[in-house]
Amino acid sequence: MEGHQVRALYDFTGQPGTAELSIIAGETLTVMRDNVGDGWCEGFNQSGKSGLFPAAYVQVIESSAPVSSSMTVSQQSSGDFWDDDWDDDSEIGQTQAYVPVTNQQQQAMHIALQSNSTDSGNSIPIHTIHSVIPERPISNVPKKNNKFSTIIKSGEDSFLLGTKVINVPESEKLFIKENEDGRCVWVPSGESYNCVITSPKKESKLKGLKSFIVYQLTPTFNNIQVSRRYKHFDWLHERLEQKYCFIPIPPLPDKQIAGRYEEQFIEHRRTQLQEFVDYVCRHPVLSRSRVWDHFMICTDEKRWKAGKRQAEKDELLGENYFNAIQCIDTPLDAIKVEIQIDAFSRYINGLDPVVKNFMAMAVDQAKKHQQLYKREFQKIGQSFCSLGHALEGDDSDHRRLTHALKVTGEAYNDIGHLYKEQPKFDWEPLADKFHIYRGIISNFPDVISIHKSAIQKRKDCERLVAEHKMETQQLREMSHRTDIIARTLMAEETHFQSERDIHINQAMKTHLQEQISFYKKIVNKLEEALNAYVD
Amino acid sequence: MEGHQVRALYDFTGQPGTAELSIIAGETLTVMRDNVGDGWCEGFNQSGKSGLFPAAYVQVIESSAPVSSSMTVSQQSSGDFWDDDWDDDSEIGQTQAYVPVTNQQQQAMHIALQSNSTDSGNSIPIHTIHSVIPERPISNVPKKNNKFSTIIKSGEDSFLLGTKVINVPESEKLFIKENEDGRCVWVPSGESYNCVITSPKKESKLKGLKSFIVYQLTPTFNNIQVSRRYKHFDWLHERLEQKYCFIPIPPLPDKQIAGRYEEQFIEHRRTQLQEFVDYVCRHPVLSRSRVWDHFMICTDEKRWKAGKRQAEKDELLGENYFNAIQCIDTPLDAIKVEIQIDAFSRYINGLDPVVKNFMAMAVDQAKKHQQLYKREFQKIGQSFCSLGHALEGDDSDHRRLTHALKVTGEAYNDIGHLYKEQPKFDWEPLADKFHIYRGIISNFPDVISIHKSAIQKRKDCERLVAEHKMETQQLREMSHRTDIIARTLMAEETHFQSERDIHINQAMKTHLQEQISFYKKIVNKLEEALNAYVD
Repeated sequence: MEGHQVRALYDFTGQPGTAELSIIAGETLTVMRDNVGDGWCEGFNQSGKSGLFPAAYVQVIESSAPVSSSMTVSQQSSGDFWDDDWDDDSEIGQTQAYVPVTNQQQQAMHIALQSNSTDSGNSIPIHTIHSVIPERPISNVPKKNNKFSTIIKSGEDSFLLGTKVINVPESEKLFIKENEDGRCVWVPSGESYNCVITSPKKESKLKGLKSFIVYQLTPTFNNIQVSRRYKHFDWLHERLEQKYCFIPIPPLPDKQIAGRYEEQFIEHRRTQLQEFVDYVCRHPVLSRSRVWDHFMICTDEKRWKAGKRQAEKDELLGENYFNAIQCIDTPLDAIKVEIQIDAFSRYINGLDPVVKNFMAMAVDQAKKHQQLYKREFQKIGQSFCSLGHALEGDDSDHRRLTHALKVTGEAYNDIGHLYKEQPKFDWEPLADKFHIYRGIISNFPDVISIHKSAIQKRKDCERLVAEHKMETQQLREMSHRTDIIARTLMAEETHFQSERDIHINQAMKTHLQEQISFYKKIVNKLEEALNAYVD
Repeated sequence: MEGHQVRALYDFTGQPGTAELSIIAGETLTVMRDNVGDGWCEGFNQSGKSGLFPAAYVQVIESSAPVSSSMTVSQQSSGDFWDDDWDDDSEIGQTQAYVPVTNQQQQAMHIALQSNSTDSGNSIPIHTIHSVIPERPISNVPKKNNKFSTIIKSGEDSFLLGTKVINVPESEKLFIKENEDGRCVWVPSGESYNCVITSPKKESKLKGLKSFIVYQLTPTFNNIQVSRRYKHFDWLHERLEQKYCFIPIPPLPDKQIAGRYEEQFIEHRRTQLQEFVDYVCRHPVLSRSRVWDHFMICTDEKRWKAGKRQAEKDELLGENYFNAIQCIDTPLDAIKVEIQIDAFSRYINGLDPVVKNFMAMAVDQAKKHQQLYKREFQKIGQSFCSLGHALEGDDSDHRRLTHALKVTGEAYNDIGHLYKEQPKFDWEPLADKFHIYRGIISNFPDVISIHKSAIQKRKDCERLVAEHKMETQQLREMSHRTDIIARTLMAEETHFQSERDIHINQAMKTHLQEQISFYKKIVNKLEEALNAYVD
């Protein structure tokens, strides 16, 4: 739908010499093309200047009803419409903050509205509106690594320069302390808890026209089950990424279109989502995040929608959220910090290919166990069974040997089956854990670059002060803010290292225990077969 | 060498309408072409008629010295020459009874003779004479299955018809009794024993120009070691096949030209030869065979040569050897025998493809363990080691995890090594055992066909008697001889079945025990790795 109006949420400075259009928070823009790729819109501002700007920086201009008030009919139906998007289980990410509405959709919306008014609000919008499949390719790469994320980061200036005063509510404040050994750590708040994902099941809507998988989440602190779909996870993930630019967000399992309703896939997806949830629950900041809390707790549909809309409108995100970080104001030793962060940066860069390789190895082993090795053992089993059968002949005197051979054949067959089933206990969980770490590690360079760019800006300002073009007080304040960014990064580094020492350690132990139990099962099978032979 | 003369050892009736020349034992023939393929010679008899006849049925006309007398110079030197052939370790079978001498060889022989007279008999013939490499392709198929063996069998008539009276010395007599359950069995004679093959080593002659592998054989009854080469085994095998047409002779390991001097190959060849020797030692007839006895015991070179020549001239072989079989003369129930032999024949035919498949499976598994699986585990090991190394970073606090990961990597590497080494304890011995049975099973149809053809001939004679063209007494005698053939076959059937019940049973148990110990070793390796992790 061309020609509709959006409001800029943030400043965006277009790169000179490109087609990018600089926009200023609050101004109204007219969209000419919704999706020109990679989350960009084409449009023009009120002075008629046209160009590209990030879709994530603008918001559709809605009805004038206040957000906090109870829902109006218009909002409710609009809510229904937006929510309908959630029925689409195509699992193709809706990762853009701004999703434009097509003509067709608007018509559908009106139809929905009309039927709504007669069917007392319970009608389901017709399915033509689901034909809008975003053109973004399905992507396995962490979302931070795109142009869009770079743009978000370039906005850190407003925090660094203190040009934007943001009022942070108490509940949103994050605390960093220094440990005995001088390391920055997130101050944990509240009891640690977990959230268990169970019973994925296929559900359908629109008389079976739409199918999707619903997972049950039960937090350990309240034991109340909520139902969530992959799509909801995807929405949550996007909120977390936008809100916490200083935290590498663990990735969701890769998107998949084919075979999504196969039992094996669903169960594996459940364990993958569990890995994501486990990581979030273990993280001192993410586990206390309001949007995560809402995701994990909310059982009421209306409150769910309200909370969802509130999260989407949350402005305390990206670089703004640095304003919420509370830490001591002792100035950091710039050189020591630089050495530490450089070492960490090299460390992360060195890990990246190794973790990718490790994960690929684990995935490969899982596949080989399920297919190649299973087949090999079944071939062995078949050979023993055939031999037993052929040696038997007509002579009943020799049944003992032929029976033993058949038992051996069955044992090898069973071992083949063990090989097929085993990966879900060892190689798959290991691959799933390393999928999480691979994502974290890929995201870290972006997180580190926020710090590096802040350091660079402080250096620029130091020069300005030396040239008497800037006040010392201003630099001092900026320096404090740079330290906040540094301490945030170092708290994340500490968290990553404790993950490594505790969680990777545990994952490896579990893997080896499962492998041991697997080979012991093989030994048992073979011993059973051996017992079938007589002297 | 064309134009040389040979003496026919046996009658041979050429097929009408073919190029085959009928020959009569004792007549002198002139050879025109030595090797026209498949063990045939082309030549003409004293009446000038020419055609093809089996090389195995004739003998080169040598000096006039009597065979039984002590060796003359001429014989000794000729012996040296023939023996020289044994220096050639090409392992291409010299399976023809008659190997012609080329002009070049004769010259070489004369040179050897001359040098002999000066060097007091210890000279080594010059190596030009080794250039005679037979044109027979290297063959894995049992030798019985060729034209040559069919010819041997066609000669059984002389035994059946009693046309050839053969004096069998007491030591050559073979005894068959009927067991309590009515089964025919070979009467075992003497204590059972074994013969252990050890320490294969590479030796060379002619200043390193000729290399070969020498195996040490030690029979358990005298504990005296003898040295034998593959070539000697090949010679022995040929003697056994010619002598015992009613026993399926276990095959030797397949011939191989490339990689014969690699340690792994030599060791494997040793175990394969051990399987052959084990089978011979377990066989009630073969284990008492004079040629085998000579092979296993003789340590003196001169006696070795004499015994070798004697074995080659042994006329009590093929169908003649049925004369040596001693059993009760109760007439067999022809119908019962036919049913039993038919069932056994079907049984053998059914086993044939299954045993081939089983052996192929075992060979395939051995190869996969040594290559594919070994590589897979080494890849896993490498991934763990790399991860350990990459996670280590600069921080010595985290050495415990990274150390544990490296221990895990080494454990998987070691497991890869176990996979490489394991087949020689389980899949290879199993494959080697089934190589023996595959050979036995492939040979059985030929052995069975001797019986079937005898039965057919008896039926023909029964018709002749009914038509009064043959005397009843003659048929009765022939029937007795047919029963001898049947009892011989049934004794072999009994032996095969006891091999199955005792030896295959034992082989399977050993295999499973080795497999169990293998997987237990893997469990131990993984447990070692697990112990490297701390809580």
